[in-house]
Amino acid sequence: MRDFHLNGILPPLTTPFDGGGNVDYEALRANVERYNEAGLAGYVALGSNGEAVHLTQDERSGVIETIRRHASPAHTVIAGVNEFSTRAAINGARNASAAGADAALVITPYFYKSQMTQGLLAAFFAEVADASPIPVLVYNVPQNTGVVIEPATIAKLAAHGNIIGVKDSSGNMGAICETLRLAPAGFKVMVGNGGILYPSLLMGAAGAILGVACAAPRACVEVYEAARAGDHARARELQNRLSPLSHIVTAGLGVPGLKAAMDMTGLMGGAARAPLMPLSDSDAARVKAVVRGTGLFPDFE
Amino acid sequence: MRDFHLNGILPPLTTPFDGGGNVDYEALRANVERYNEAGLAGYVALGSNGEAVHLTQDERSGVIETIRRHASPAHTVIAGVNEFSTRAAINGARNASAAGADAALVITPYFYKSQMTQGLLAAFFAEVADASPIPVLVYNVPQNTGVVIEPATIAKLAAHGNIIGVKDSSGNMGAICETLRLAPAGFKVMVGNGGILYPSLLMGAAGAILGVACAAPRACVEVYEAARAGDHARARELQNRLSPLSHIVTAGLGVPGLKAAMDMTGLMGGAARAPLMPLSDSDAARVKAVVRGTGLFPDFE
Amino acid sequence: MRDFHLNGILPPLTTPFDGGGNVDYEALRANVERYNEAGLAGYVALGSNGEAVHLTQDERSGVIETIRRHASPAHTVIAGVNEFSTRAAINGARNASAAGADAALVITPYFYKSQMTQGLLAAFFAEVADASPIPVLVYNVPQNTGVVIEPATIAKLAAHGNIIGVKDSSGNMGAICETLRLAPAGFKVMVGNGGILYPSLLMGAAGAILGVACAAPRACVEVYEAARAGDHARARELQNRLSPLSHIVTAGLGVPGLKAAMDMTGLMGGAARAPLMPLSDSDAARVKAVVRGTGLFPDFE
Amino acid sequence: MRDFHLNGILPPLTTPFDGGGNVDYEALRANVERYNEAGLAGYVALGSNGEAVHLTQDERSGVIETIRRHASPAHTVIAGVNEFSTRAAINGARNASAAGADAALVITPYFYKSQMTQGLLAAFFAEVADASPIPVLVYNVPQNTGVVIEPATIAKLAAHGNIIGVKDSSGNMGAICETLRLAPAGFKVMVGNGGILYPSLLMGAAGAILGVACAAPRACVEVYEAARAGDHARARELQNRLSPLSHIVTAGLGVPGLKAAMDMTGLMGGAARAPLMPLSDSDAARVKAVVRGTGLFPDFE
Repeated sequence: MRDFHLNGILPPLTTPFDGGGNVDYEALRANVERYNEAGLAGYVALGSNGEAVHLTQDERSGVIETIRRHASPAHTVIAGVNEFSTRAAINGARNASAAGADAALVITPYFYKSQMTQGLLAAFFAEVADASPIPVLVYNVPQNTGVVIEPATIAKLAAHGNIIGVKDSSGNMGAICETLRLAPAGFKVMVGNGGILYPSLLMGAAGAILGVACAAPRACVEVYEAARAGDHARARELQNRLSPLSHIVTAGLGVPGLKAAMDMTGLMGGAARAPLMPLSDSDAARVKAVVRGTGLFPDFE
Repeated sequence: MRDFHLNGILPPLTTPFDGGGNVDYEALRANVERYNEAGLAGYVALGSNGEAVHLTQDERSGVIETIRRHASPAHTVIAGVNEFSTRAAINGARNASAAGADAALVITPYFYKSQMTQGLLAAFFAEVADASPIPVLVYNVPQNTGVVIEPATIAKLAAHGNIIGVKDSSGNMGAICETLRLAPAGFKVMVGNGGILYPSLLMGAAGAILGVACAAPRACVEVYEAARAGDHARARELQNRLSPLSHIVTAGLGVPGLKAAMDMTGLMGGAARAPLMPLSDSDAARVKAVVRGTGLFPDFE
Repeated sequence: MRDFHLNGILPPLTTPFDGGGNVDYEALRANVERYNEAGLAGYVALGSNGEAVHLTQDERSGVIETIRRHASPAHTVIAGVNEFSTRAAINGARNASAAGADAALVITPYFYKSQMTQGLLAAFFAEVADASPIPVLVYNVPQNTGVVIEPATIAKLAAHGNIIGVKDSSGNMGAICETLRLAPAGFKVMVGNGGILYPSLLMGAAGAILGVACAAPRACVEVYEAARAGDHARARELQNRLSPLSHIVTAGLGVPGLKAAMDMTGLMGGAARAPLMPLSDSDAARVKAVVRGTGLFPDFE
Repeated sequence: MRDFHLNGILPPLTTPFDGGGNVDYEALRANVERYNEAGLAGYVALGSNGEAVHLTQDERSGVIETIRRHASPAHTVIAGVNEFSTRAAINGARNASAAGADAALVITPYFYKSQMTQGLLAAFFAEVADASPIPVLVYNVPQNTGVVIEPATIAKLAAHGNIIGVKDSSGNMGAICETLRLAPAGFKVMVGNGGILYPSLLMGAAGAILGVACAAPRACVEVYEAARAGDHARARELQNRLSPLSHIVTAGLGVPGLKAAMDMTGLMGGAARAPLMPLSDSDAARVKAVVRGTGLFPDFE
């Protein structure tokens, strides 16, 4: 297994599609090459922003391989595993490993919501981690799943030798603090909301996996570096620039909004797969206004 | 295309697994043969109770084929399509058709919840129905998906020539009444909650797709027949027998509870796939007490 | 204590205000006199539609007294009690009795939501009923309170000698059926959603307390009478006329919408108290279209 | 009007009751005198933890007067206003002023939830602030109300000359950051969750109104002082001590839990008013373990 680290910013890369709606691996390569210069810790393939749920098994492997191939060797590559059964999640982790991922970011199962007790979730992650050839991160994203994995459950799972961290996209700062407090040192808490990046780092988060980092990777890295350097004024100021962009391209307009912001900043965004719809003209104008308002893109027309 | 109808009760068949956790097609065949005598209108493969989300593509085809092969020719076979992208849902409908399904029961997409507007849902179903070789039913199951498709949207979709009905498992009787009121005659509203079977039929539902019908098919058929015959006293009395069983094997204990009730009543239930867990002893005892309490299974020890 | 009954329709009377925002008791009297001819079982004062939460203690007593004075002696008068502490709820029931109410409709407490366990709710209602000089009905209205009292809790409370029924406005038909199944004969289940009036009566509800009955009392009474007479076709047809009106004046536009519909049908509606706002012109036009669309008001311009 | 400030920690004082369930003003006085030595900025009377909803109008005035009389002159006294109608909220602010409060903390109205649009909330607060003789703070507490006032609405209200701040108890750190970003300098954002005290201060919150400060006032003040002094390591360490106590006495066990923790630490807690129930023995033991686990009370047996 490769040596890798999780200290810093990892964008959950969007998946570009060509005019026929097929994965555009060339565009993905171009994005990765652009990102390679930004000071990122690595990349997440097949996260929520990567439209993992819209891809076939073959496409999933292709996306991981493309990212791994074009990332620099120092970049960590994490692959999302979005499955409902334990056996499918294990297969997903194995496929991710085979395609070159360093670690697997495994979403909580979420279809049979009323059955998703903390005990079931703990058993699920332990079983997946037992069988996974690569280390596992727990993925908590209740706004998409309707399921919450609690800090106490995460802390319990942190004792498993093959579970190395959590990505928490809940936006629940109190819960993130609890996880940081309860989990052992070395367990990696990665925040998943751009709007609370700096406060999370300050409380001890190792890093972040942020949709907004697909559009504004440097600004996210600079928040991270300012926080690490103890330059609180600068971290707060950058956080305030990032927050409105983070909000509109995630909770607000979702993947189509994020891809539009990427198009505006010189990256390959493009359309999301249906049923996600292109932005309306007025929403596109809102994104443009927010991008411009950040002051982070001086070259932006 | 085969001629088929939706007037009556269709159980969403559970998928039996063998000791190794693989699909047990023989057990599925045995269940279908038992059900063939019960007066059912047909079967639903790959619904929520069928653990569609836990099956591979090959298993999904195998389940549909097995049900079609062992159902009597007069039985309608509907196949669930549980996908997130429009293109995957279209493929799912095509595969269902190829495997012998008469119609496809297509779930609302549900991962990017904040983007699931009524307009998006309408466009999704229209596009799937345009491409599907078999008629489509809309599947509304917010307790699993966190997404609601509204009566006005369903009524609009009812004008599409290849969308023939809806399965509504929301339990929202007011919304079901609205759909019945707004949709044209001939559009099939199938209720998906055993606890409101009789009231729904009375308001004009064509039939029902009920988890509890996997355990108590005859009682469900008798409610249907009593309602059709205008024997309200009998329909109500049977409804009251069914309701507690329906509750515990769906909202209460889910698929493991339903499978336990099937085991108790001479059918092939067995374990669900992980991460769903076997019932605790106390939950199994509760199911047994409820099964016995219905008075519907005189041979039950 | 007066003899009274709960079999039939009781509108939860709106509270009219004059131009200065004070309670207009004359307008209330005029409404009651109009309603006296409609075949109603009685009236509810100080329900959600009566803006109980917007009235002072003195106004609450005045409203009850006015309704009692102008109702015919055969009409039952129920008074809402909307309080948070047990002692205040007991005082509310005593005041209601003193002002002439036959029974008290006591809302579940709802501020400290995370503490509102079923055990706490059971203890609360038992303690209030112990001290109340008039019989108590439980009021379940989760869309306003965020608190649900479950069928099993209601059924347990039904054993209390001074708890005679429940008004269930949840719209959860399955739960209403459960309450009807679990509670003893004689316990009065009053449905609180116009959209499910007929199905609820069919399952055994004694009657209904319906906002829409403030605007369309005769139609509600006719649904009740048709259901009692076993004229299912007529009951269903009237239900379908009522449903859209019920929806827009309750869940849709709330008290201001209901009052607007009353104004349109010759009753004294008027403005709600702030912070509730007057209808926009477009919302008023929607109400007018729905009122006309029911076909229940032939004299409506 | 007195000069007062909001920079620091204000506990939302609990209301003690005597054995007969009446307000125990002597116990309240004793608590205030204890708190006067703790370095607090002031006190909030009649907040959620003060059981405002369980008190009569006379008791509310008595509580404010008692706190004002026994606080030191340098302490700010804020009074909660928990009403549903605009006119009642205005009366509440006037009564608070008459009883000696420096400012009014006015809760969002919350009964007619479906009508509580941002426009309605903005109009409500503007109208109350127009008429209030003392400055107004907006109180956002969705876990109790089911209503959210959004950052953009708060920022708009910040332009009103008599609206000086917000208490945000939502726990939504991203929203708190947004409010801080959007509101003008000088607008006071007071955080209402002990679990996110330090991150909120770091992002610019002026201070905090924290239930946990009723039990652990010094520790809260020390977090505030460490944050102001830029001693991040100490602030974080104290935050981690406070968090579990904050959680169990607010979201966990509510007012009865907070009062139990006060009893354990030498303050006058006592019972909450019914329907809130005394802690079970096992819950009391949990509180004791958490209090001891903080290490903040060296004298604790």
